[in-house]
Amino acid sequence: MMEKLQEDLRINIDRLQKELLELGEIGEEDGGLYRMAFTEADMEARAWLQQRIADAGIEAEMDGAANVIGRLGEREGPAVLIGSHLDGVPNGGKLDGALGVLIGLECLRRIKEEGLETRLPIELIAFSDEEGRFGGMLGSQAVSGQLDPEQIMQARDLSGVSLKEAMRKRGLEPMAALTARRDPKNIAAYLEVHIEQGPVLEEEGLSIGVVEEITGLFKWSVRLAGVANHAGTTPMAMRRDPLMGLAEFAGEIPRILEEHGSAESRATIGKIDLVPGAANTIPGEIFFSLDVRDIDADKLEELHDGFRRVLSAIGRRRSLMFEFEVLSRVEPVPCSQKIVRTIEETAQRLQLPSMRLPSGAAHDAQSMAKIAPIGMIFVPSKGGRSHTPAEWTAWKDIENGANLALQTLLKIANLNPTELENL
Amino acid sequence: MMEKLQEDLRINIDRLQKELLELGEIGEEDGGLYRMAFTEADMEARAWLQQRIADAGIEAEMDGAANVIGRLGEREGPAVLIGSHLDGVPNGGKLDGALGVLIGLECLRRIKEEGLETRLPIELIAFSDEEGRFGGMLGSQAVSGQLDPEQIMQARDLSGVSLKEAMRKRGLEPMAALTARRDPKNIAAYLEVHIEQGPVLEEEGLSIGVVEEITGLFKWSVRLAGVANHAGTTPMAMRRDPLMGLAEFAGEIPRILEEHGSAESRATIGKIDLVPGAANTIPGEIFFSLDVRDIDADKLEELHDGFRRVLSAIGRRRSLMFEFEVLSRVEPVPCSQKIVRTIEETAQRLQLPSMRLPSGAAHDAQSMAKIAPIGMIFVPSKGGRSHTPAEWTAWKDIENGANLALQTLLKIANLNPTELENL
Repeated sequence: MMEKLQEDLRINIDRLQKELLELGEIGEEDGGLYRMAFTEADMEARAWLQQRIADAGIEAEMDGAANVIGRLGEREGPAVLIGSHLDGVPNGGKLDGALGVLIGLECLRRIKEEGLETRLPIELIAFSDEEGRFGGMLGSQAVSGQLDPEQIMQARDLSGVSLKEAMRKRGLEPMAALTARRDPKNIAAYLEVHIEQGPVLEEEGLSIGVVEEITGLFKWSVRLAGVANHAGTTPMAMRRDPLMGLAEFAGEIPRILEEHGSAESRATIGKIDLVPGAANTIPGEIFFSLDVRDIDADKLEELHDGFRRVLSAIGRRRSLMFEFEVLSRVEPVPCSQKIVRTIEETAQRLQLPSMRLPSGAAHDAQSMAKIAPIGMIFVPSKGGRSHTPAEWTAWKDIENGANLALQTLLKIANLNPTELENL
Repeated sequence: MMEKLQEDLRINIDRLQKELLELGEIGEEDGGLYRMAFTEADMEARAWLQQRIADAGIEAEMDGAANVIGRLGEREGPAVLIGSHLDGVPNGGKLDGALGVLIGLECLRRIKEEGLETRLPIELIAFSDEEGRFGGMLGSQAVSGQLDPEQIMQARDLSGVSLKEAMRKRGLEPMAALTARRDPKNIAAYLEVHIEQGPVLEEEGLSIGVVEEITGLFKWSVRLAGVANHAGTTPMAMRRDPLMGLAEFAGEIPRILEEHGSAESRATIGKIDLVPGAANTIPGEIFFSLDVRDIDADKLEELHDGFRRVLSAIGRRRSLMFEFEVLSRVEPVPCSQKIVRTIEETAQRLQLPSMRLPSGAAHDAQSMAKIAPIGMIFVPSKGGRSHTPAEWTAWKDIENGANLALQTLLKIANLNPTELENL
């Protein structure tokens, strides 16, 4: 009977919809959302969430890293966590992390409302600064024990404001972030719903994506240097034009990905600086960014070598100096295969067709994978857009994703100790 | 006897050298030259030149456009003009236009010193604002009658200073520039010595280049627009990345020049702006400059069509919107074939090996071609460099160029009326 009750439980889409719009007003300016970590709007959103949790009769707290937490069930024993983040990029959209947080809230509330009991406690968590205003994913790195005191003391945002100042301004003690660390024994699993931020689900006409892995990446700053010269007086054959080197390189990207990568490999040049940058001068130097992603650590390594070799060969052939700096390197993170299958089976039961896909973007789940098995559910992004006020997902897709999250959460929270150990 | 005297006349390289260095100190700051048109340094240079002319016993004047003029011989009859300009680009070099002016001065002075008489009067002219701080070649456009009142009233520099203000600040009346216009009947020919500003003469190991024509050009601002998206979440096949359009286009440039242009065609992309310009975002838009030059007006027209067609095809194939704006278009200007041959024969007599070449850069000679036959002599640029403090030419090359200018000047100034008519 209890099991039947649980299997029939659904979220309240009207309430979820109302709350998404209400939360979306906090930090809204001229149609865009400005709710960057530790701004007034961000703190207001945290307070708003704590009030919603309390209104549901669930005890709300904020840990040392300013993560907002609501816990359903016993204080003891490993908990199943569900959540995401409330902060956003400047001029961002209303869904992004907020969707995952509010779906988590709705899940806990529905379970509480129906008086259902699960074997394991369930926790909602809204992580701090997922967007990395201060360089990393502060909240989830704190919880997963990846934060150190030096990092806290030195972190600054792009305009030079320190994390210390930003937290103290909101009455928070920066060093307390270290106390947010959780014992891995006390976390059974972490589940996150997020918008896809890409075009695949929409293209396929599906409500549900089951994330298999979060892609790793390397980011370079590349410099090609030749000789700046007058555009009119320098014959084509006497030029050492670094832009022509970049053009050749960009043209080779599809081949490099085919030869060294996988179907999930991605490479992007998003930033270019020409020096001196005048219409009548052949550039002497070009700086550009290279962002390469894959779900497989070995492929990523191969791509690293492949890109280096091609740039090096172009440099030699065109008499251009080639240098690069590795700006960041993140290893791919697999989701728990058991959780992936649990999500898929649950989706099937709910008659929600789904597909597996990688996450090309970073998420709190990536940090949490250090201490717990993780799972992620994607819902479609209209036009593949995110980090813009144009970011949106159809209400039907949100409802489907939320119900899938609720049912998956109940399933995991009712696993027996042996099943848990094999997650 | 007179002819023998004339043919043996040579410039004084020590004096020329000393004056080049002295003039190069006017406007020097931290090693670079800052002598932009109508700045204090520019006015000081004009005063310095007038003093030098006067010291040589030649009457110096400044016309309405602030061109400095020194005339040797009768006030009547068509004159042979020799000159260039004193102004420079910010952080420019010490030769550029100054070399042509000081060589002109040295030519007049040597003729005067030896008491030689020529059939036609000879004039030194140092034109105002050749570098186009106020948009055009003010001095030579004024002399050749290509200036109108509206232009004078509306011209502004890049920081918004108007030509009116700039001239009035120096005690000059802007509208007086119109009075600098000369009757074409009174100008027999215009001769200009200039540094090549390119690498060809140095590569060929020659002191002398004889300019056959000044290249024409068109300059576009091109926009390719696709869709900005997340670098991690957007599969390669679903992208509409305008940078990949630019890369393909840049790769096609050599082929376009081969198919539609000539050996003297040049195309340069010197400026690029990616929007939004972030490493983790596929750009949504790219703006870039395209500077295309050729010595042949028909070729230039063909190149215009060729480039448009290729960009248009790339736009269609890659689903990118393609637009372009023509920022400027200048027709090629041929030098007088008679003067070209006169320079070549004179070089041969002086045992100075020479080659013909086009001028890829614009010069005052281009404006003067509207009202008189023109000729230009190039001397090598070290490393092909110009518009930089590193701009330089070996003293021996300067001496050779100056002697060739002197002998060519004497030759033209002694032509009989029939020869003159056929210049």
